[in-house]
Amino acid sequence: MTLKGNAAIGQSGGPTCVINQSLVGAILEGKTQDGIVNFYGAVHGVKGVLKEDFIDLFKESDENLELIAQAPSAALGSVRMKPTVEDCRAIFKNLQKHDVRYFFYVGGNDSAETAHILQTVAEEDNYDLRVFHIPKTIDNDLLVTDHCPGFGTAARFVALAFMGDNLDNRSLPGVKINVVMGRHAGFLTAASVLGRQHDNDGPHLVYVPEVDFSQEKFLADIERVLSKHSNCLIAVSEGIQDADGNPIFQSDEKDSHGNVQLSGTGALGDYLTSIVKKNLKIERVRADTFGYLQRCYPTVTSDVDSREAREVGAHAVRAALSGEHASGSIAIRRISDGKDYASETFVTPLKTVAKHTRHLDEEFILKDESDISQAFIDYALPLVGELPRIGRFQAPRIGG
Amino acid sequence: MTLKGNAAIGQSGGPTCVINQSLVGAILEGKTQDGIVNFYGAVHGVKGVLKEDFIDLFKESDENLELIAQAPSAALGSVRMKPTVEDCRAIFKNLQKHDVRYFFYVGGNDSAETAHILQTVAEEDNYDLRVFHIPKTIDNDLLVTDHCPGFGTAARFVALAFMGDNLDNRSLPGVKINVVMGRHAGFLTAASVLGRQHDNDGPHLVYVPEVDFSQEKFLADIERVLSKHSNCLIAVSEGIQDADGNPIFQSDEKDSHGNVQLSGTGALGDYLTSIVKKNLKIERVRADTFGYLQRCYPTVTSDVDSREAREVGAHAVRAALSGEHASGSIAIRRISDGKDYASETFVTPLKTVAKHTRHLDEEFILKDESDISQAFIDYALPLVGELPRIGRFQAPRIGG
Repeated sequence: MTLKGNAAIGQSGGPTCVINQSLVGAILEGKTQDGIVNFYGAVHGVKGVLKEDFIDLFKESDENLELIAQAPSAALGSVRMKPTVEDCRAIFKNLQKHDVRYFFYVGGNDSAETAHILQTVAEEDNYDLRVFHIPKTIDNDLLVTDHCPGFGTAARFVALAFMGDNLDNRSLPGVKINVVMGRHAGFLTAASVLGRQHDNDGPHLVYVPEVDFSQEKFLADIERVLSKHSNCLIAVSEGIQDADGNPIFQSDEKDSHGNVQLSGTGALGDYLTSIVKKNLKIERVRADTFGYLQRCYPTVTSDVDSREAREVGAHAVRAALSGEHASGSIAIRRISDGKDYASETFVTPLKTVAKHTRHLDEEFILKDESDISQAFIDYALPLVGELPRIGRFQAPRIGG
Repeated sequence: MTLKGNAAIGQSGGPTCVINQSLVGAILEGKTQDGIVNFYGAVHGVKGVLKEDFIDLFKESDENLELIAQAPSAALGSVRMKPTVEDCRAIFKNLQKHDVRYFFYVGGNDSAETAHILQTVAEEDNYDLRVFHIPKTIDNDLLVTDHCPGFGTAARFVALAFMGDNLDNRSLPGVKINVVMGRHAGFLTAASVLGRQHDNDGPHLVYVPEVDFSQEKFLADIERVLSKHSNCLIAVSEGIQDADGNPIFQSDEKDSHGNVQLSGTGALGDYLTSIVKKNLKIERVRADTFGYLQRCYPTVTSDVDSREAREVGAHAVRAALSGEHASGSIAIRRISDGKDYASETFVTPLKTVAKHTRHLDEEFILKDESDISQAFIDYALPLVGELPRIGRFQAPRIGG
């Protein structure tokens, strides 16, 4: 049965380069659906619903929608807020007031949880609201789906950054540590290896949250690399932890989902630098923390990622209108791989995605070598797109 | 008079995205010159000459040379070393041994100084050596030339980074501080403003080494911005100093030219964050330090920058072979501006470039506003190339 009424959509959590593709995919699909009279964009997610601050999305020109789709970050504004049951009642009041029958929330596992809470309270209140979660996260840490929209582009940024920094570090050799986003899942850090082309290309060492971090192994790994190469390029997840589960670095700041602030500071990189300088007596040791550039840098967007991000937005609207599911999250299934890569989208229940975190598959990690496997490269490369070929001198050496 | 003999070339200082264009420009031009029998690439600059470690560049295929030209960083390897007079004697011995009559050194003002020292000692020794400096620096801080190869691409990276981060910071509002490379010159930090398109786009505040940094003004500036906007995006040069000339942050590490290490650490950004948190009681304050990505990130190269970098390399070889000058540095003159931007290259004496540092022109700085002027935008935009248009919702707001 098709409900007739208005739709609302919000964006939540850390932005990505393609989250606006999902937004615009949903709006354009909404325009083709008779069931949706008006489509409201909640400014800063559930906060906008609580404040009744909406944008009248069907009034936007298609030309401008296409420009918005290509822009990084969350065009509606984002939020990090876990609504209480009281918040949910206030949200319904406002949605009812505006005759909203379809609610779409673009975000990660925290946003899926928010959607799940909303839907649960709506059922209890006998309010007929169809709630769909549209996935996005650069962390790639949602369950059920093969991968998450937003990951391919962030992974492309990281792969390119390591390709450039590998050349930089070969040029002026030393130990270089790059800290990559990733609280609990090492997918983005693993993407650091995707651009390796020559035998001794870095990163030579990769540390992810899935493997206990040991200072002794870290230093021994570096010595092993430097016994073979003149330089050592290292990728480290911001969320690495020791064997007792203590983060190697953390600040005191938390959001309302209980997540500790890890990004927006260079402290972990500087700490690791100091360890290497002190223990290995190496002169040139540097650290960069890639920070927020990883999720919003323009012009390096992956085509596959853009396309899939738009499709999950459109699928959510189709699924909600079809009435086959009263709620759900859109997931991606890989149909074929490599150069023939293809995918399709499907609906999975909200509770299968909400709150849970996916970790790097075991077969993606080479634990002893502190490295990432070929299986991960095969998995991630189609999502990232073609990377540039790097030239290196092949001509003979002339000595003294 | 055309000297007949071998040529040698080296790369020095921090790499850029287009320093290999200059290298390949010189090699390809060298192939057309009868005066050059062999062209030797010194591995890691003057260090390679001292160790007699050369690559036989004429043996490289043109196809591979083109791939190398497009790759960021220094394909021959770089070095930070100021040769002593003793080093220079050892260098000549090795150059003479390999019958080198043309020496090209690609680098910044420190490298021009190295070239100048080499040339001076060569004259004293009556060794007929033509020494040419080929300019490169992302800092854009060489005298005489209108601008430096390497700057346009690094400026493009910074402009794009701020465009993305402006959207990110609008999406999850707060105070965001980005630390940009630039020891003494604020050109690269100034490039943060090049992508502003909408009235309230950031960066809202820009701090360069040319203006004394005051903590009081910094905090007052932020309060002024936050009285008008919901967020505040800030660009800070790594080399900002107080009124007494003391850096706001510095490490103890120096290179042989006396330059203090500023990059490869997040300490300045973290320090500024702590000031803002403590004094202004703002919840969300973050800092990113762009670090080495600014000089070696692939795929965002400016076309104008690539072309000019190749041309200064080729011009150096032509100038050396023509015999009109025994030594010199290649500079760029701007012929026309805006959309009709065009430039030409010319030779300037080594001593006009060696060691000196150019600073941001006074007309480029809006000191009271802590901002950058339209005059700078007119100067820099042709070097950076077209930037993407950013879409923003125009549709009407619906309230309660």
